[in-house]
This record gives sequence, C-alpha cells and structure tokens, in this order.
Amino acid sequence: MAVHLAKGARDFLPDAMRNRQHVMGKVRAVFERYGFDPIDTPAFERIETLTGKYGDEGEKLMFRILARGEEGKEGKVDMALRYDLTVPLARVVAMNPALRMPFKRWQMAPVWRADRPQRGRFREFWQCDVDIVGAEDAVADAECLAVGSDALRALGFERFQLRLNDRRILRAIARAAGAHDRELALLIIIDKLDKIGRDGVTEQLRALGLDDAGLERLWSILDVPAGHHATLDALAEQLDDDGKIGVATLRQVLDAALALGVPADKLVVDPTLARGLDYYTGPVYEAVLLDLPIGSVAGGGRYDGLVGMFSGRQLPAVGISLGIERLITVMEEQGMLPTSSRPAEVLVTMPAADSRTAALTIARGLREAGLTVELYLRERKTGDQLKYANERGFRWVAFVGEGGSPADPQVRLKDMESGSQSDLLLSDVGPWIRSR
Amino acid sequence: MAVHLAKGARDFLPDAMRNRQHVMGKVRAVFERYGFDPIDTPAFERIETLTGKYGDEGEKLMFRILARGEEGKEGKVDMALRYDLTVPLARVVAMNPALRMPFKRWQMAPVWRADRPQRGRFREFWQCDVDIVGAEDAVADAECLAVGSDALRALGFERFQLRLNDRRILRAIARAAGAHDRELALLIIIDKLDKIGRDGVTEQLRALGLDDAGLERLWSILDVPAGHHATLDALAEQLDDDGKIGVATLRQVLDAALALGVPADKLVVDPTLARGLDYYTGPVYEAVLLDLPIGSVAGGGRYDGLVGMFSGRQLPAVGISLGIERLITVMEEQGMLPTSSRPAEVLVTMPAADSRTAALTIARGLREAGLTVELYLRERKTGDQLKYANERGFRWVAFVGEGGSPADPQVRLKDMESGSQSDLLLSDVGPWIRSR
Repeated sequence: MAVHLAKGARDFLPDAMRNRQHVMGKVRAVFERYGFDPIDTPAFERIETLTGKYGDEGEKLMFRILARGEEGKEGKVDMALRYDLTVPLARVVAMNPALRMPFKRWQMAPVWRADRPQRGRFREFWQCDVDIVGAEDAVADAECLAVGSDALRALGFERFQLRLNDRRILRAIARAAGAHDRELALLIIIDKLDKIGRDGVTEQLRALGLDDAGLERLWSILDVPAGHHATLDALAEQLDDDGKIGVATLRQVLDAALALGVPADKLVVDPTLARGLDYYTGPVYEAVLLDLPIGSVAGGGRYDGLVGMFSGRQLPAVGISLGIERLITVMEEQGMLPTSSRPAEVLVTMPAADSRTAALTIARGLREAGLTVELYLRERKTGDQLKYANERGFRWVAFVGEGGSPADPQVRLKDMESGSQSDLLLSDVGPWIRSR
Repeated sequence: MAVHLAKGARDFLPDAMRNRQHVMGKVRAVFERYGFDPIDTPAFERIETLTGKYGDEGEKLMFRILARGEEGKEGKVDMALRYDLTVPLARVVAMNPALRMPFKRWQMAPVWRADRPQRGRFREFWQCDVDIVGAEDAVADAECLAVGSDALRALGFERFQLRLNDRRILRAIARAAGAHDRELALLIIIDKLDKIGRDGVTEQLRALGLDDAGLERLWSILDVPAGHHATLDALAEQLDDDGKIGVATLRQVLDAALALGVPADKLVVDPTLARGLDYYTGPVYEAVLLDLPIGSVAGGGRYDGLVGMFSGRQLPAVGISLGIERLITVMEEQGMLPTSSRPAEVLVTMPAADSRTAALTIARGLREAGLTVELYLRERKTGDQLKYANERGFRWVAFVGEGGSPADPQVRLKDMESGSQSDLLLSDVGPWIRSR
C-alpha cells in the first residue's frame, strides 16, 4: 500500500524535532521573562467564529470540518481549523470577562491554511505570538518590540532591524495623496516598495487613480529618510493632525523601546512600512534580518478593534508574532542549529542471556542517577553494538563487568571520545560521568 | 454577538496551562531518561491513511475535512484529523525506511474524536505515548512498563498497580472455553469484569453461546489469583501450547521489569486483564491507581502487525500510552498541582510620566539579570498597583527610587511576604533577590 502525507504537511523526525524544541524553548524563556502567561485554545473553532475575520482570501484557505452524523452526510460544515492565534485570543477574552486586565499571553501552536504548498510554505505551521490585551499605553507596544528584539537575540541573531510605522501616518499619507477612500489598496501597493521599486509603485498608484499632485505629496512624505527622532520631526511637519497623533505615539513607543533595552541601531521609523492587514489601528512593526533577503521574521502592531468584535466591550490590544517557521529554516540553513541527533548520554549494551539482569540493573541505576540512558534492545555481537554506538554518536558505552554485587554490579565503561575504558562499580558511574 | 467554543473543546487559561506544562514536562523528562526521541506528525492525515484502522466506532468518531475548491463544494472529503498517535507512527515508519531500528519515539500531542462530550471527556485531548518499533525482545516490553511506572512516580503517585496479561493467554482461554471463533467478543465481555462482576460476565458469555463446560474451564483459568511467578506457574498448567508461549513471554517481561526497577508490589500478572483493542498480539498491560476508582491511567502492549500494514515489512512494536488528561484531572482534584497562577518574580510599578524611563530601565535591568519581570502597564495610583501585586501573588515589587544614575537607578524593593522595603541600586537587585 502506497502511503503519503497529506498535501503540504510535514513530519518532524527526532533531529528536526529537537531543533524545534530548542528554538521554541529559547523563545518561550524570553516570553516568560517579560511576564507573559501561556494559554492554549482548540485546533478547531465554530465556523461562525472564524467567518468574516480574514477576508475573501482567508475564507478560501480555511480547512472546513464536516458535521458528524446525518448533517455531515448532507455536506453541512460546522467547524474550521484555526487560521491564526489572534481571533481565538479575542474569543477567549470575550468568553472570560473575569480575566484580569491587562492580559498578557503567549501562545505557540500550529495553525492551518490551505495555501499552495511551495518551498518553505506548508499547510500546517506554527505561530508564536505574544499579545497584551487591555493596555492602551505606548509602553505596551514597546514591550512587544523589546520581546521581539530579545527573542531574536536569544536565538543568536545580531544583525536585524525593527522597522516601525503607525497606521495613522499611513492614513494621513493616503489623505495627502487624495486617496483616503482607497487607503487599504494604497497600503498594499506601498507595501511592495521593496519588491517592485519606486517606479513600480508609482505605476500601480497611477492605476489606482492618483494624480501627479497626489503622487508628489505622497513621495515627499515617503521619501523622509528612515531613522529616529529626526524622521519623526520631518514627518510631523508634513502630516495633518491625525497623522501627527501617529507621530507622537511612535515617539513614545521609540523612547520606551530604547529604555527597555532595544539597541538604538535596531530601531528604525520607516514611513514606507505598510503591513497590509486590515485590522491594525496604531503602531505597526516588523523585523527583518539584514544579511538575508527572506522578508520579515516578525511582525505585529496595535489592533484596538478586534477584541471588541466578540465581546462588545472595546479593549485595546497589541502584539507581535515571530515567524518561527522561517526562523527555524534560516537557522538550519545558516548552521545555527545542530544537524545531527543527540542520543542519550549512555548506551548500555545487551550481553548474552545469562548476564542480562546485570545489564538491566545497570540501565536502571544510571537512570536513577539522572542520566539519560538507552538500553540496546537486541542481542547482537559486541562489535555490532559498538558500531551502533559510534554511528549514533554516544559518548559513553556501558558493558556488564566482572564482579560487584547484584545490586551494585561492576561496569566496564568505555569513553568513545578517548577510546579509554574504566572498570567502576555501578554506583560510581554517575559521578564519574558527571565529572567529565 | 454570542460566542462559543466548539462542542467538546476547551480553552486552557494560564493556571490550567501551567499545570499541563508541569505535568507534561515531568513525563517528558522520564521519556528522555529512557532514551526515547521526540517526533511530531501533522494534525490531519489523508483519509485513506486512517480509514479501516479503528473499526466502525472509530470511523464514526473521526473528524472529516472537506476538500478545498470545487471538490469540496461537492462534499468531497480528503483528510481527517488524527484519531490517535499510533497509526501516524506506523505511517512515519513506513515512509522512512532509513530510520534506525529499534526506533524509540515519544510523542505528546492532541488527537480528536467526536465522542459525546461528558464530564472529563473532550473531543480534543492529548495523548502521551512512547513506542519501540523494531525490537521483539521482552526487554522492550519491560522498558515500556518501567517508563510507565517511573512516569507515575515522577508525578507523585505512589499507590498504583501495573496489571499484565498476554493476548496468547487470552486466546488460549477462548479456545479452552470453546469460543476461539468469538475471541474479540469474549475479550470485550471479560474486560467488563470489574464493572459487571462475575455473574454479569457469566450471563453475557452464555448469551455469546458458551456452554457450562466451557464456562467452567474459563473460570478455572480466570480464577487463578493475580500475582507473580506462582500465577504464571498455575496458568502454564492449564493452558495449551500457544498459551504457554504467552506465559513464558510474561515471565521474561516480569523479570526484566523487576530488574529495570519497577517495584515488585506494583507488578501483577492478571489473567482477567483483556484490553479490548484488536491489534495487540502479545503482552498487554494497564496501570490503575489503587485509591481512586477512575479506571486505567495508562495502557499498552505489543502490536507486531500494525506497522507492517503500511510498510509491507513486518516490524515488531510495543508501546505504552499515559492517560495524561485523566492524570491531570486527578492531580488537580487531589491537590497535587498548584491551583493559583504563578506570576513573574517581580512586578515593576509604573510611576508618573516623568519617572517612566527609570521604571523601564529597571524592568530591563532585572530581565537582563535573568529574572521574570512584569511591568505594570497602566498609570494607576500606587495603592492600586500594590493591590494588583497582592492579588496576583507577586513576591517582589519594585518602585523607582531616589538617586542612582540613569543607567543604574536606585530601586525601592518591597518584599510582599515580610512587608519590608529595601533601597538598592538596580545592579544589586538581582543578586539580592536570588539570595532570598
């Protein structure tokens, strides 16, 4: 019988899995250091919870689950797999009015999208989010930036940039360009600046209906050089009042992020940063690696409207999502992760039947001493077992030795690195290995 | 808008989530100590991978996913959510012929079944499995028992029993009773002995067509008292040759499990242990808590046929699955887990606007010192912030103090346990807290 994975799905075998656990463990430690709490939500949500939240495109990419029983036979769909972790968070907040605000949560979990599978893009992938619900202060935005910066540094990245903008600045640009009624379309075009260049953007904006005067005002703002306070000053000069509010907010976010320890050279106010998502209402940001042209590796912003969609009560919210899958891929490609399997610390070899009990006693004793121990599970020649130990990269191999008592038998311990052998009582092996 | 979870689904808020992480972390450490490697598989599988593996009942309980695009509109189903972790393991082994045997893997992940939701039973729940593929030796079975025993002890359970039997013993019983052609039905009835008692079982076996002579032979075997070697000796006397092979295997498993450190009082050979699953071929076992009538909290056995179903090559396999959801429920009910949230170690209070930068510097410095730190994210009166710290159970609360330098400001640190306050330089706070 031919057997296949579902399209766009992956298995993670031990090497890959340990790499993922390593990366997620590092990130999780940063989230915890900032006082975020973990939550988890189900893989599936009622269909009405997800419908209407992700636009037409998202709607198409959702995996729908057939109802059970008779209704299912008639094709009724009542649930879908979660598409991100943000809408489920909004639902959790709405359903738990007693949650203490601000509610700071982290979540790392798979989401599912029926995208066309391609290199590096899968239909099941993990998201890795922190969000703060119920805090409108710019310090909350800055905490998200600081978490993103610390997480990237914890993973070993040194050359990256956090680019910031504010949706109110972008809205003011749309107004200045005479396109306030086509704001989202305009954003999506500006977002392509990196890819299609200034001429490409100009062409598409013309197609959107912008005239020369509008384009001139637009470029005069977008051309303000990315930077810190000078950028903000220059933007404030050109923007209307709502735009100035965006500038003032970014100033607070920038100052707070610096005070929280984000290095100044990693923070850049960039008026061309758009991020196409509809639901952002204030600051937006993304992280890019400077030496690797792979797009953003983290992104987020303030979305003060989303949580209220379920709860009726308006609650401010801000978050950042690490592109954990992309980061893992980069780290594997750049040799930032071990590629070979790390076996248990000790292999206990399996002797002939009459010495078996001693081998089991040795495995037991070493485990009780806190070592990770693999017991060789087949009867094979010693040479074959040593070959296995070698291939897997075990540092220590234990054989049943001569003598000792049944409870504390003698162990012949081979150090595969040096090739040397030592004869020790079982009770002495743990300390011996620990000291080396 | 009313908002609901999907039927039979759960959210895990921070308290519950930390408990789950605690339990799974303990279990994972045991799995690693025995040299098992982690893997992960996708939430969904092709429908043909899962169909025909779980019987009619399982088939009904599977969550089916509608195909995307036109086919889906016509009701085509091409995938289903995984129903357990065992069939995916068999698929992984079949698809990766280069995997080194024996392959010892652990996996902890959710599975989905459309069971009728009831107290303690959900449609999404985690399984927590270790399996050894490619080892036919009884030591492999014993390692699974030892892992189960160590995991339960690591969670704090002391009074439990691992009950063992062998499918060949049960088959021999069926033959002795004249019901070799109704073996599975007979097993399922015997499995109810705890619930419906001897009279109930006898009645149902009569309905299955057993006559008095068959019933007498059956009870004469099932009545062998549960125990160790004496039980095995008594069974061997009454069973035919195939049954005797089961007895001899259990003898090896029992001896190996004892040598691996499973306490003798926790191991019981019990000829009435049936475990209804079709695919077991050799030893079967389950764990029960002695003081709590909640059914089994772990179960497993040898299933030498399942992996070959996909791969064509027959590979022996044996495993144990911990009933992690049931264990977590018991531990919560028995007060074996903390019930209140554990906040970050330090709360840094938010002062008036003119001292903010110092507060952010303090949060940054304490995080850099490795402490977990929550920064209070709203401007509130000091009393309100202290009340919050109290309610959440923070041990340490940090205020901006007077003096120090911008890079190393003075901190007023309050110990919420003793009520005492100390004035320290930021750089001294980490060591101060660590020493207490």
